[in-house]
Amino acid sequence: MPTTTLLSVPSSSFTLFPLNSSPSSSSPTAILLSNKVLKHRIQTKIVIFQRKPIKIGLVRAAMSLEKETPETERPQTFLRESDGHDEVISPSSVRARFEKMIREAQDSVCEAIEAVEGGAKFKEDVWSRPGGGGGISRVLQDGAVWEKAGVNVSVVYGVMPPEAYRAAKGAAATDQKPGPVPFFAAGISSVLHPKNPFAPTLHFNYRYFETDAPKDAPGAPKQWWFGGGTDLTPAYIFEEDVKHFHSIQKSACDKFEPTFYPRFKNWCDDYFYIKHRGERRGLGGIFFDDLNDYDQEMLLSFATECANSVVPAYIPIIEKRKNLPFTDQHKAWQQLRRGRYVEFNLVYDRGTTFGLKTGGRIESILVSLPLTARWEYDHKPEEGSEEWKLLDACINPKEWI
Amino acid sequence: MPTTTLLSVPSSSFTLFPLNSSPSSSSPTAILLSNKVLKHRIQTKIVIFQRKPIKIGLVRAAMSLEKETPETERPQTFLRESDGHDEVISPSSVRARFEKMIREAQDSVCEAIEAVEGGAKFKEDVWSRPGGGGGISRVLQDGAVWEKAGVNVSVVYGVMPPEAYRAAKGAAATDQKPGPVPFFAAGISSVLHPKNPFAPTLHFNYRYFETDAPKDAPGAPKQWWFGGGTDLTPAYIFEEDVKHFHSIQKSACDKFEPTFYPRFKNWCDDYFYIKHRGERRGLGGIFFDDLNDYDQEMLLSFATECANSVVPAYIPIIEKRKNLPFTDQHKAWQQLRRGRYVEFNLVYDRGTTFGLKTGGRIESILVSLPLTARWEYDHKPEEGSEEWKLLDACINPKEWI
Repeated sequence: MPTTTLLSVPSSSFTLFPLNSSPSSSSPTAILLSNKVLKHRIQTKIVIFQRKPIKIGLVRAAMSLEKETPETERPQTFLRESDGHDEVISPSSVRARFEKMIREAQDSVCEAIEAVEGGAKFKEDVWSRPGGGGGISRVLQDGAVWEKAGVNVSVVYGVMPPEAYRAAKGAAATDQKPGPVPFFAAGISSVLHPKNPFAPTLHFNYRYFETDAPKDAPGAPKQWWFGGGTDLTPAYIFEEDVKHFHSIQKSACDKFEPTFYPRFKNWCDDYFYIKHRGERRGLGGIFFDDLNDYDQEMLLSFATECANSVVPAYIPIIEKRKNLPFTDQHKAWQQLRRGRYVEFNLVYDRGTTFGLKTGGRIESILVSLPLTARWEYDHKPEEGSEEWKLLDACINPKEWI
Repeated sequence: MPTTTLLSVPSSSFTLFPLNSSPSSSSPTAILLSNKVLKHRIQTKIVIFQRKPIKIGLVRAAMSLEKETPETERPQTFLRESDGHDEVISPSSVRARFEKMIREAQDSVCEAIEAVEGGAKFKEDVWSRPGGGGGISRVLQDGAVWEKAGVNVSVVYGVMPPEAYRAAKGAAATDQKPGPVPFFAAGISSVLHPKNPFAPTLHFNYRYFETDAPKDAPGAPKQWWFGGGTDLTPAYIFEEDVKHFHSIQKSACDKFEPTFYPRFKNWCDDYFYIKHRGERRGLGGIFFDDLNDYDQEMLLSFATECANSVVPAYIPIIEKRKNLPFTDQHKAWQQLRRGRYVEFNLVYDRGTTFGLKTGGRIESILVSLPLTARWEYDHKPEEGSEEWKLLDACINPKEWI
C-alpha cells in the first residue's frame, strides 16, 4: 500500500495538517522550515526504520490545539488582525484569497444542496479558538435527499515546537536554538451521504498550508503547499454517472496541467484503499497533496477550479438518481458499503485518526460518518450481480474516461 | 488514558497475541524469552520514548500468519501432533485443557443462545493453518433476539523471530545468535448484539499464551500468561441487571482472590475507554491481562470459572428484556451506542487494529461489529433522561455492587 495519504476528512481543523508525504518521497528527508518538518515528525509513528528516534509525544502534545469556543456570528474573516505579519491580512494575500474561496465554495455547495432538498436546511455552528482562527460547520441531517451532509471550513493557526525543528535536524542541531515555527492552515471539507442507494456519496476537501520562518531566523523562506481532492462513492455503478464525474475532474485538471488528472486519479485510488479488505472505498476521483512545485498562483486557481467543480460534477447525478425506486436489498447493500466507509475513515484516514488522537472538534471530524451503516458476517455478492460489479470496481480500479 | 489494553476482540487468531503490558508496567522492561519480548516489540509503535529503536516492521512481517484454509469438519483438537514437545498433546497439559475448556464454553454459550432464539441457528466456519492450529467461528445473524452473535475459538502457533529477541536485548545481544522462539496462543471470544434496545450487548474473551524456550537455549524457562474479561454494554440502564451482571463477575473472582474483582473491574473501565469521546463503551465488568504471577492451575481454574459464568450472568437479563416494547427513539439511541461500539473497536481495540494490520481472518475479527449502527451530528441526550443516565455512567464509571 502506498503511503500517499492525507487528510481527506472533513471539517476539523486538524484535518488541515499535512500528515504524510507525497508518493514520490516515501523515504524521509528532513527539509528545514518547510511543512515537511512537521510531516516527518508525525510520520515517525509509521516509519520506524529511520535512524534517529523522534520524541513524537512531545510534538503531538505541543500540537494539541486550544479548545474551541462556540460563536454566535460568522466573522468577516478568521485571519488574525496582527501577529507581526502584515501581509497576512491583506486581501491580496494567498491566505486571505484561499479563505474567501473556501467560504464561497461552502456557500455555493450548501445552496445547491438545499435547492435539491427543497425544504431541509443546514444547521450552522461557528467556533473560534483563543489564539485566532476558527471554523464554520454546516450539517444537514435526515433531509429528503441526503441522510447526512456536512460542509465545513476552518482556519487554524499553530506553532511547530522547536523540538520538531531540532528533531528534524538531528544531532547537528543540538548547538542551535531555533524559535518556534508558526504555521497557518485553512481548508474546506465535506461528505454528502444521500438516502437513495442509487445516489452516490461525495467527499471533497481542499486545503492550504503555510509556515513562517522561525522567529529567530529572519530571511529563512516561508513554505506553503496545497492539497485536496474530490471522490465519488456509489453503492451501484451507473457508468454514465461515473464517466460524468471523472470527466469534470479531468476538465478541471486539464485547464492547468495535462499530467494532473492521470496522476491525481491514481493517487486517489491509492489513498482510499481499505487494506484489510483489499478494496477501495469507492470509485475515486482526484487526490493530491503536498503540492508546491508549481506556481503558487496557478495552484490557488487550480484548487478554486476544483472546489467550483463540485456542484456540476455531483448535483446532476443526484437529480437523476434521488427518486429511483429501490428495494430493501438495494438499501442493505448501500448500508454495507457505508460500513466500509466507516472502516476507511476510522482505521486509515490520517486526518480522522490524527484528529481523534489530538483533540480536534470531534463532532466536526466524525460528521464524515454516515447516519447509518451495516456489517454482515462474510457477505459475498453473487458473481455478476450489480453489487458484485461495484465491488469488483473497488478491488480493481478502472479507467472511466 | 491508561495503557492497560489487550485483545478484547473476538475470534481472530490475532486477537490472542499479547499486545500490551499490565497497568503496573507502564514503562517498558524487556524480559527475555517471555511473552513480554513480543509485547514490547509491538508496543514500540506506541512507546516512542524508549531508548532503543526497534525494527517493528520486521517483527510484524514475520508475525503475519499463513492464510487460513476452510475445513469441512471440526477436528478433535487443534493441537499439533508433534513438534518436539511431547507434553503439548498430553491431555493433562495446560494447552490441551485450555483448548478443551474454550471449546466446551463455545458449545454451552451457543446452546444457550439458540435456546433463547427458539429457531435461529449458528452458522459454523472451521478453518486451519498449514503450520498447525485453526479455529471454529460461529455466527448467528438476524435472529429473533440477537441481530448478530459471534462466538469464536482459535488455537494458533507462531514463531517469534530472533530479531525480536535481539531487539529486546539491545546492543548486548549482538554477539548472540538465538534461535526463533515458538509460541502458542488459544482463546475464545464473543460479541452478542441483541435487537431489543433494552437488552444489552455482551462481550467476553478468554485466552492463554505460552512461549517455548529458544531452540538453542535448552533449559531456558517457558513463559505463559492468561488474559480475558467479560463486559456488558446496554443502551439503557436497568440497575438490577447491571448489579446482577457485576455480582456474578465478583463471585467468580472471589472464589480465587479477593483483590481480583476490584482490580479487574477498574482495569475493565480503563480499557474500554473511547478517549476522543471521554466515555467508556459500556458499563464494564472485568478485564485482566498478562496474568502469570499466580499459580498456573489456579489461573486455569479462574479462566474456566469466568467462561462458565457468561451464561448465568447474561442470559437471565436477556430473558427479562428481549420482549419489552420499545419506540423508534429507543432504537435510535441503541443504534447511536452501537456507533460508539464501532468507534471503540476500530480505533482503540488492540486486537482489532493489530488483526487488521497483520492480515488476520477479517470476517472473524469484524464479527464484533454490530449489524447496524448510527451516527448523528452533535447528539446530546436531554439532561436527566434515561439516555443521559446511560451516558453519565459511561463517562463516570460507577460501583455497581
